[in-house]
Amino acid sequence: MRWQHSRHLFRLPSRSTPRCRHISTANSAPVLFDGLVKGNRHALAKAITLVESSRADHKQEAQRLLAMVLELGKRARGGKGSGLPTTFRIGLSGSPGVGKSSFIETFGLYLISQGHKVAVLAVDPSSSRTGGSILGDKTRMPDLSRHDMAYIRPSPSSCTLGGVARNTNEAILLCEAGGYDIILVETVGVGQSETMVSEMTDFFTLLVAPGGGDELQGMKKGIVELSDLILVNKSDGDLEPASRVAVMEYLSALKFVTRNWEGWRPEVLPVSSHRGKNIPETWETMKRFYDASESAGELYKRRGSQRTHWMWRQINDELMWRLKTDKPVRQMINTLEPQVYEGLLTSGQAADKVLHEFIDRQRSGLVK
Amino acid sequence: MRWQHSRHLFRLPSRSTPRCRHISTANSAPVLFDGLVKGNRHALAKAITLVESSRADHKQEAQRLLAMVLELGKRARGGKGSGLPTTFRIGLSGSPGVGKSSFIETFGLYLISQGHKVAVLAVDPSSSRTGGSILGDKTRMPDLSRHDMAYIRPSPSSCTLGGVARNTNEAILLCEAGGYDIILVETVGVGQSETMVSEMTDFFTLLVAPGGGDELQGMKKGIVELSDLILVNKSDGDLEPASRVAVMEYLSALKFVTRNWEGWRPEVLPVSSHRGKNIPETWETMKRFYDASESAGELYKRRGSQRTHWMWRQINDELMWRLKTDKPVRQMINTLEPQVYEGLLTSGQAADKVLHEFIDRQRSGLVK
Repeated sequence: MRWQHSRHLFRLPSRSTPRCRHISTANSAPVLFDGLVKGNRHALAKAITLVESSRADHKQEAQRLLAMVLELGKRARGGKGSGLPTTFRIGLSGSPGVGKSSFIETFGLYLISQGHKVAVLAVDPSSSRTGGSILGDKTRMPDLSRHDMAYIRPSPSSCTLGGVARNTNEAILLCEAGGYDIILVETVGVGQSETMVSEMTDFFTLLVAPGGGDELQGMKKGIVELSDLILVNKSDGDLEPASRVAVMEYLSALKFVTRNWEGWRPEVLPVSSHRGKNIPETWETMKRFYDASESAGELYKRRGSQRTHWMWRQINDELMWRLKTDKPVRQMINTLEPQVYEGLLTSGQAADKVLHEFIDRQRSGLVK
Repeated sequence: MRWQHSRHLFRLPSRSTPRCRHISTANSAPVLFDGLVKGNRHALAKAITLVESSRADHKQEAQRLLAMVLELGKRARGGKGSGLPTTFRIGLSGSPGVGKSSFIETFGLYLISQGHKVAVLAVDPSSSRTGGSILGDKTRMPDLSRHDMAYIRPSPSSCTLGGVARNTNEAILLCEAGGYDIILVETVGVGQSETMVSEMTDFFTLLVAPGGGDELQGMKKGIVELSDLILVNKSDGDLEPASRVAVMEYLSALKFVTRNWEGWRPEVLPVSSHRGKNIPETWETMKRFYDASESAGELYKRRGSQRTHWMWRQINDELMWRLKTDKPVRQMINTLEPQVYEGLLTSGQAADKVLHEFIDRQRSGLVK
């Protein structure tokens, strides 16, 4: 864990990939907004693509659209602030192969049968490496993706994690404006993206396979720590005994973990997506959390803190992005960094030089 | 753990406290350097005070002094980079009451008896709140502090954590230039400062008391995760049986923890500062780590990574510091932050506004 933080925080963006996908046609905010609130899925898809774009004119339209969405929410609450949330944002993570797609398919259809409208978003940490999307692929959830009451968004490709996070936060707002009251944000088992997802959702669910040393994997990555609910999947047939053991192991591992909120003790449930085992119980558990945290004011506070957290994070990320992508500053860093590594220069001396150059270039208006 | 990261990263500096202590007399780098390499403790103390200062002229002198220190190290290694380290930087943490002072006193005197020169530095997370220093107080280690072969530095008061970390990194270099081959960096049990200390030392030691639920405390704060060695202190008299239980508990807790380096499995030892129990064994363990990590090249790599890590961190911290302490930007944030909390503005919208203002003010040369 020692270097995870620094690697993430200061990862250099790749210059060769565009920051975000581009939109083929120009969209105007009022038209998109209109379609969005009417529950038009095509408008929702276009709106999310708009907030994902890094083009200046798209950014401006995206700001207009978001302002309308926030205004809508304000009016719905009688002119006051966000007040009590009326939607439920659920984070879901699990390693490849634990059956995330099957679970989302089964669980999503169950939620729809209970009268909910379900949106599935993805924070995909691997997209920037593979160039392709492994999450949010509609073919993974054939029945759910065809359903009128569901919207599945493929994860944005070729984006930095920071960018994905910003887009996902805004995509959640757009889905909520489109009438989706349950937002599932899925990600895959690598520490950083889990932390991000937990910081943009109300409830964090970890899906694990029975046996196979997964319980240690989870602990290692600090993901168990983030979890409000651990689901041991594939609890059917031959794997049922193993899943019972896994439930006990996770319950014991949770003893070593600080609670995210004193009002909730993380739970562990065996489930089977194929047989529908404990799917209603999973939803009951989540609802119990929602009711408890809403009435205690925790949900309201958590969302408020999440929003200000992201504000600071986005300020920080954008500022560092500007510094790292300015060519002369970048060149200076490339020269200084090996000297610092070798101990020929202190970290403080190098930091002073870099900052001096960056500020100088800002002053002369040379940094965009 | 959910918000710990953000709280730390974006903590606002208090405007009312000075960033660092001030020096009464002007010191010149060559004079200090001369005293330093002759092993003069008074010169070392003055040199550390100089690198801690935030005054522009002091900063310049500090840079000159550090350049001389780095040049000295380079010459000592035959003109090459840092090469193999010849000093050992040991981090030490423990909650108040576990007997840190007594341990450092006993352990430090033992190291001196083995022919070493020992410096004790402190990263004190509480100093900015209390205004006083709770670590590095010489009266806590009466015999060690009087010894010619030891130097104990009280923690700098009224500094931000970021500042403390920068200063401590440079203070370590100064101590090493002064001939101290073992640098103990002590801190107290609150997650953030432990992480910092582990990021500036070669080896991290956690001191715990027998029993009392401490083992859970440690896990909670992610400190066990950082530890290369856990010492169960006060393993004497009535507490001996309890300390044996604690050793087992920590050994079991360590199973859930990722290793910092595959070449080292964290160990647990019962010790008694008062009776000297396992003090030589503690040093033997540390030496085993040192030898293994040095011959594997891990020590060299770790120090290199630590230095570049701190370079990025200092760039980041300084940039955010400038943003946060610029009055109009600060006022804008004070207005926007509650709106973001209430959900009247997205975090991205607010971040854009703040950045725009900051860059504008830089361009016009209004930000110092």
